[in-house]
Amino acid sequence: MLTYNLSKSNRLPMYEQLYRNIRDDILSGKIKGESKLPSKRELAAHLCVSKVTVEAAYSLLVAEGYVYSLEKKGYYVESNLTSEYSKNNHQQTAENNIKKEYIVDLASNTVPPDKFPFNRWSGIMRKICLDYKQELLSPLPYNGALCLRKAISGYLYEYRGIAVKEDNIIIGAGAEYLYSTVIKALNCKGKIAVEDPTYHKIINSYKSDGLDVRMLEMDKNGVMPDFLYKADCDVIHISPAHNFPTGIVTTPKRRQDILNWLYQNENRYIIEDDFDSELRFGVNPVSSIYSLDKSGRVIYINSFSKTIAPSVRIAYCILPDEISEKYKHLFEKSGCTVSSFEQYTLAEFISKGYFERHINRNRKYYKTLRNRLIDIYNSSAINAKSSLIDSAAGLHFLLKIETALSDKDLKNQLDKFGIKATFYSDYCSDKNKKEHILLVNYSGLSENKFKIALDKLNKLI
Amino acid sequence: MLTYNLSKSNRLPMYEQLYRNIRDDILSGKIKGESKLPSKRELAAHLCVSKVTVEAAYSLLVAEGYVYSLEKKGYYVESNLTSEYSKNNHQQTAENNIKKEYIVDLASNTVPPDKFPFNRWSGIMRKICLDYKQELLSPLPYNGALCLRKAISGYLYEYRGIAVKEDNIIIGAGAEYLYSTVIKALNCKGKIAVEDPTYHKIINSYKSDGLDVRMLEMDKNGVMPDFLYKADCDVIHISPAHNFPTGIVTTPKRRQDILNWLYQNENRYIIEDDFDSELRFGVNPVSSIYSLDKSGRVIYINSFSKTIAPSVRIAYCILPDEISEKYKHLFEKSGCTVSSFEQYTLAEFISKGYFERHINRNRKYYKTLRNRLIDIYNSSAINAKSSLIDSAAGLHFLLKIETALSDKDLKNQLDKFGIKATFYSDYCSDKNKKEHILLVNYSGLSENKFKIALDKLNKLI
Repeated sequence: MLTYNLSKSNRLPMYEQLYRNIRDDILSGKIKGESKLPSKRELAAHLCVSKVTVEAAYSLLVAEGYVYSLEKKGYYVESNLTSEYSKNNHQQTAENNIKKEYIVDLASNTVPPDKFPFNRWSGIMRKICLDYKQELLSPLPYNGALCLRKAISGYLYEYRGIAVKEDNIIIGAGAEYLYSTVIKALNCKGKIAVEDPTYHKIINSYKSDGLDVRMLEMDKNGVMPDFLYKADCDVIHISPAHNFPTGIVTTPKRRQDILNWLYQNENRYIIEDDFDSELRFGVNPVSSIYSLDKSGRVIYINSFSKTIAPSVRIAYCILPDEISEKYKHLFEKSGCTVSSFEQYTLAEFISKGYFERHINRNRKYYKTLRNRLIDIYNSSAINAKSSLIDSAAGLHFLLKIETALSDKDLKNQLDKFGIKATFYSDYCSDKNKKEHILLVNYSGLSENKFKIALDKLNKLI
Repeated sequence: MLTYNLSKSNRLPMYEQLYRNIRDDILSGKIKGESKLPSKRELAAHLCVSKVTVEAAYSLLVAEGYVYSLEKKGYYVESNLTSEYSKNNHQQTAENNIKKEYIVDLASNTVPPDKFPFNRWSGIMRKICLDYKQELLSPLPYNGALCLRKAISGYLYEYRGIAVKEDNIIIGAGAEYLYSTVIKALNCKGKIAVEDPTYHKIINSYKSDGLDVRMLEMDKNGVMPDFLYKADCDVIHISPAHNFPTGIVTTPKRRQDILNWLYQNENRYIIEDDFDSELRFGVNPVSSIYSLDKSGRVIYINSFSKTIAPSVRIAYCILPDEISEKYKHLFEKSGCTVSSFEQYTLAEFISKGYFERHINRNRKYYKTLRNRLIDIYNSSAINAKSSLIDSAAGLHFLLKIETALSDKDLKNQLDKFGIKATFYSDYCSDKNKKEHILLVNYSGLSENKFKIALDKLNKLI
């Protein structure tokens, strides 16, 4: 007979305790499928509880689908309920969550912990918790907290020369979220064109929105005008300030070509992805297409995930007036996707000047790190068999390698050594590029690990 | 001649200072469009700076589109740049952000500040800031932090009787974000059916995804089976635990009808929105359709925005194995939309038992508040001309009012008195319902304000 230790002093009512005990035993397989439960009277007597308690527990088990009752026969356990899953393996880590540990990771950009102002950030968070109680408990408008939009507007004006009303700024949970909502506001259906190469996640994001994603070929000046027309798309997504991974900065002349394409048809739109524009070394910030445009059909998107920390999922876009109205119409009744705690924290972080200081400090740190790593490369043996492509922007540089191996083989070989690597071809539509260009994502890379990687690579090729 | 106070001790280079000064004067209208700038030589002499400095500033102004140059003629200011927007009005609040202040707000649910454990939450945040540095600076997997998925899995098992592997849980920035990604994983195109009545934002969310949203009529037992078939949709979105705003709980028999509909065709899916299921007063939690289903085609969605605070934008969904794979395939390369700070904070808040205590405390508080307000209603004059519909769940109750006025008129009249109200008909596809049912969203409502609202309402009808 089922035996459980039910207690009146437990915070749960007796029937609930009984219900949970039986349920757990069914799920763990202790009570087998199709087995008959004791009659209510029997079990009540056995457990020294009232029949009402057993009745209530059995009713719940039936309602929850663990047990079925047959009239005049009794209660039976449903079959196929025993899952591998039981209370005991509850705390086990799912296997596919265990990531392979690499000795050197050239493929990811992590931020060294001392490069993030944790004390400042948590101090502001605490202050927000104390000062903003009522605001934190009220829903935010669809476009985000006014104070954050103001702070961003002020920042853009001061440091990017972009004048924008806070009403035209939309705060969203990451750039990809905004890609997805912006194309809805643009009523973009069917197809979109993006730079070739570019981030996978940009392509994936648009694909998952059901769009056919076409590629815009680039030369050293930016997207080639011919391809703008060949792609035959009304909406294009580009990063004129800094293509990933090539680092190509679109030239002023080419920017004008792109704007000319835009002006030729009023159904055309440009989504300008300005990520990483803050992390430039020695080069002036480039003017945004958004501020050059006179048609009101350029949407500007940027994010704080790169400049602050990947864990801060706050991106924003600037919408020209007309699109801003359409966006409002579509999303006004939706909640903003970023929690207000972080919006208020970031607003204070920016408006008190901490963000600018943080960027300047990191820019200096990364510039020094980059130069040290490039020095190491220059004096390494592999230097003779490769060349450096440095765009003086972003958190990676490129090494063009002379080798007979394919990128795929190179990657597999490096993987065996415990080195995680990505290549230029990973981001191109043509995966069989003849050039072999390795990405060195260096933000979390130590000099020693870089030496190890260069040494292994040298032995391979 | 343009006169600016440029300083070598400024953190900005001289040319940048000059550039900003001129730019600001152009934007503010001090320098008019089409006016000619002084020659480089002249301005350099006037400001006692080198010609190189002026050259660099003018180049930037040209690059940014503020100024154009005519060969052999000089530099001219672009026209139409003077925006209403200038540095001075930068801090002004945009007018349409000023919300009307209501004396009584029956339409919104705010959380009283003392009902949120600010100290506990900020204490955990601080701890996370100190203990999780490296984790906070590394990107999270697409489906969210493992520790939060584990905490949710444990919570669901303990308190909702739902056994689920943490790999099948997806964390997202709000329920609407998940609606949108889930239908992509289901490859749901063309149409979807939702309950009538329901939240606007559910309908809007699916509409903005390009879907035709069809309505499922309900009776007191839940969605009527006939309408499941009439709607002719493969995917339905329902809240069997608690329809909004009626509070209808779908009966066990009706749940079976809905499951039968599901089982008839393997292309059919149910999105089960279990919001508010934690806030029930005196009624047992109802079993979820997700746990009754044997086909693996029910997706469970819930959110912490209602149970913790609207500012915490964390929702989650549970995907059956097959859909989980499809979701992974689509979104694996995307970042998770919720910042890791909050994920780690919430994980600790749940796993340390604070969440359960918070829910229990609030449930008790809201139950008492609800009963007090209902007592006030029962002893008010309007009692004779109306009746209470109380579903003993959620943060609102309903008053059915006898009146010759339309809901629209009632709302406008109340608005004039400074009372914000919504009606049942606001959430129905048929806006001309003959019944007049007022929603009383009470979570932030004081007894006094409720008395004022009832009094005004009584005078109106």
